[in-house]
Amino acid sequence: MPTTARWAATLTLTAATLCGPLTGAALAAPEPAPSALYAPSSLVLTVGHGDSAAVATVERAVTLSCAPIASGTHPASVRACAELRASGGDFDALTDRRDALCTREYDPVVITVDGVWQGRRVSYERTFSNECVKNSYGTAVFTF
Amino acid sequence: MPTTARWAATLTLTAATLCGPLTGAALAAPEPAPSALYAPSSLVLTVGHGDSAAVATVERAVTLSCAPIASGTHPASVRACAELRASGGDFDALTDRRDALCTREYDPVVITVDGVWQGRRVSYERTFSNECVKNSYGTAVFTF
Repeated sequence: MPTTARWAATLTLTAATLCGPLTGAALAAPEPAPSALYAPSSLVLTVGHGDSAAVATVERAVTLSCAPIASGTHPASVRACAELRASGGDFDALTDRRDALCTREYDPVVITVDGVWQGRRVSYERTFSNECVKNSYGTAVFTF
Repeated sequence: MPTTARWAATLTLTAATLCGPLTGAALAAPEPAPSALYAPSSLVLTVGHGDSAAVATVERAVTLSCAPIASGTHPASVRACAELRASGGDFDALTDRRDALCTREYDPVVITVDGVWQGRRVSYERTFSNECVKNSYGTAVFTF
């Protein structure tokens, strides 16, 4: 058997072993599970005006992926991922505040986070009394 | 007043007008709301083995952003966004099936979708009786 044919046969056998008898090798197979290498961390963050996510209209939404590398439409994905790693994925722990003077006006802004952090499902919501208060948290995560 | 100084003064005034008196111009301001141009569409899709998302461990998670352009860690973001636009964002309408032979083995796979589609919040879950059945749906959306 020529080398090429032997390789082809080996590959076919390997594919059959991996895919099982009836899984349809012709179908587009997903990538080999990256989950074996790292726990998935993919999030969608939204911001809107309102008391709660249930009533707020979503004004902006960004994606943030932190594994295997920081990416997404979040404008500061690298910093945001670093902050989340530092807080162990605890969004309530993102409490650093800058010295900002904000009015006491009540015009609530709500942030939501949904998806997966290191394999754990996340569904988070936090309301700030106004946009200035939200921005006074010096976290990259909430700045989008 | 030299031209440069005049410009600086004008810019400062403009910034003050835009930011309001107390919002702290030193804070990193978010980008001008892209929501004025398009409704946000940002999603996180996960897949795991189990009867429902509540019990399944997330094995893979990808992000998918469809506005202003298709992007994300989803391996076929352009096709996936096109399919979602065609279905009006209705995940249940993604029912095209290829002719695939699947065993009747019950080894359920659950897909979840969370985030925002054209400004509307999405929280979707669908269970397939096994991986082969999931892959028999010829949709790019579920192939990741």
